[in-house]
Amino acid sequence: MVTIDDVAKRAGLSKSTVSRVINDYPHVSIKKKEKVFEAMKELGYVPNSSARSLRNKKTQMIAVLIPRIMNPFFGQLAESMELQAAKHGYQLLICQTMYSKETELKHLELLKMKQVDGMILTSIENEWDVVKEYLSYGPMILCNEFEEEATIPTVKFDQVHGGYVATKHLIRQGHTKIAYCTGGQKSNVGQHRRRGFDLALEEFHLSFDERHGFYDAFSIEDGIRIFKQINQMPDPPTAVFTGSDEVAAGIITGAKEYGVKVPEALAVIGFDNQVITKLMDPKISTVEQPIPFLAKRAVEVMVDRIHHKGNDEEVYEYPLELIIRESTVSPIRAVE
Amino acid sequence: MVTIDDVAKRAGLSKSTVSRVINDYPHVSIKKKEKVFEAMKELGYVPNSSARSLRNKKTQMIAVLIPRIMNPFFGQLAESMELQAAKHGYQLLICQTMYSKETELKHLELLKMKQVDGMILTSIENEWDVVKEYLSYGPMILCNEFEEEATIPTVKFDQVHGGYVATKHLIRQGHTKIAYCTGGQKSNVGQHRRRGFDLALEEFHLSFDERHGFYDAFSIEDGIRIFKQINQMPDPPTAVFTGSDEVAAGIITGAKEYGVKVPEALAVIGFDNQVITKLMDPKISTVEQPIPFLAKRAVEVMVDRIHHKGNDEEVYEYPLELIIRESTVSPIRAVE
Repeated sequence: MVTIDDVAKRAGLSKSTVSRVINDYPHVSIKKKEKVFEAMKELGYVPNSSARSLRNKKTQMIAVLIPRIMNPFFGQLAESMELQAAKHGYQLLICQTMYSKETELKHLELLKMKQVDGMILTSIENEWDVVKEYLSYGPMILCNEFEEEATIPTVKFDQVHGGYVATKHLIRQGHTKIAYCTGGQKSNVGQHRRRGFDLALEEFHLSFDERHGFYDAFSIEDGIRIFKQINQMPDPPTAVFTGSDEVAAGIITGAKEYGVKVPEALAVIGFDNQVITKLMDPKISTVEQPIPFLAKRAVEVMVDRIHHKGNDEEVYEYPLELIIRESTVSPIRAVE
Repeated sequence: MVTIDDVAKRAGLSKSTVSRVINDYPHVSIKKKEKVFEAMKELGYVPNSSARSLRNKKTQMIAVLIPRIMNPFFGQLAESMELQAAKHGYQLLICQTMYSKETELKHLELLKMKQVDGMILTSIENEWDVVKEYLSYGPMILCNEFEEEATIPTVKFDQVHGGYVATKHLIRQGHTKIAYCTGGQKSNVGQHRRRGFDLALEEFHLSFDERHGFYDAFSIEDGIRIFKQINQMPDPPTAVFTGSDEVAAGIITGAKEYGVKVPEALAVIGFDNQVITKLMDPKISTVEQPIPFLAKRAVEVMVDRIHHKGNDEEVYEYPLELIIRESTVSPIRAVE
């Protein structure tokens, strides 16, 4: 059998350097890494981790379920997890549910078939009662999305606070008629944001006009559609909480087309702090979700669960931050 | 053993309906699907496809290797493949290489370990001699990226034509000093685009000023950096071939900041036709890569290879299309 010593000899490097490369430690030069990989290939050496995984039926792989990689929030979350997983010696398999219950169940089978060591759920399409059945096959954790009744580790943002600070900011700009947009209504993330929105309205003794509620709002196209609806209202809102930078960009694009000034005639606040917020004119005020923190902790907790460490009931919650740009602050209205 | 008849009885549906749901045929109502999945869960029924895969060691899974899901071109390509794979009853596992040779090799191990039935490569980080070794473990195809020496099915765009039509468009607007941006220089995709760029210059007896070549250009930030370099040149180019909508958006953002008018003082053409091209002001001229066609054919060819059908040498090539918007056509210069 080919050993790590053979690889070291062939590569002309020390055994410890080879070990550092194989175990993915930092501070090894690219050149040395390439030499090691070349030697491994030439000798047909299978690193211990793979050999070990064959014995233990561990795969050193983690699957992450996300709705769509084209949603920049989830794309960035998966990318951050990828970088973190690599640090722990794990590969990340990205599985899109495409908002389908059926596809979600198929991906959950990865756990059943022992194709992965653990699974991170960033969204949930099926009822929790259905999903939790898969816990008997391997560890799962929740990241971003959450379930009140779930007894698995959860890493999440404080969405109530996010909804609250964004809405309060709009109210402080003098707005009393604020529209509310949301994507999936089943999502607890969305429900908590709404709770924050309602809390801010209550605090300022404002009421919500149900006609100013917009649902299934995910994309730029949805934002354009919503703007057109607002534009036709006899008593339109003067500000919009969008819950999404893409929806905000769509509303602004629609407003430009119809010559409606943002923020003077219509203030718009996004959510996520995606790159697009800085490219639009006006630049979009938004709520930043610090994705790298969430991803780092989620992978750490996942790896712990794979090694049967940590507490099932643990919940990690991260704060969200309001970022004020041009789409909400008009020189006339500004009172902050 | 639980059979499909048991599931049908429990769900209160016909056996053929249950079969249609399990095999993912279209035109079955969500309600019926849910009933079937519920009955399957309750009875612990493992569909034939899973049972079959356990017997044949087939996984009904295809892996796609992409550099980064946050690159909208690759994100969209993976999403289109996901939809196509589902139609063929396959799950797609998305693996990011993050432009790393090492990570690419780790993901290729999926084939060695029989974790997937086949692998689609949309990019290649290692030398082809290294990658081709994995062909002994299972079928691979190339999609988007290509290798002249590779003897595996390849599905690609005609990048030479893409580079040519974009450059010719700039020349026809009166430009003679055209800058060239590119991402990875190793990529054959990039090299073919450059060949098209050079062909157009030759046709009009124009020469390329090496100082107008910009490399490692991938992102919006890179575009801003490139604009600043151009802006400091004593003899700057009047047009830029970017090879990327994001780089184009970055250059336009930089130009706005410094009060340089696009397209009057600097014409900019993107590549991909991403959503961002329609949101920027000016809207970005670009070259459309019809991703869904590429994804559809790639999945079809992959499934064929898994079933040992098709010819290893086959190459499918799709044309690219020039889309003219505001970032290249100034009312003064327009001669087309």
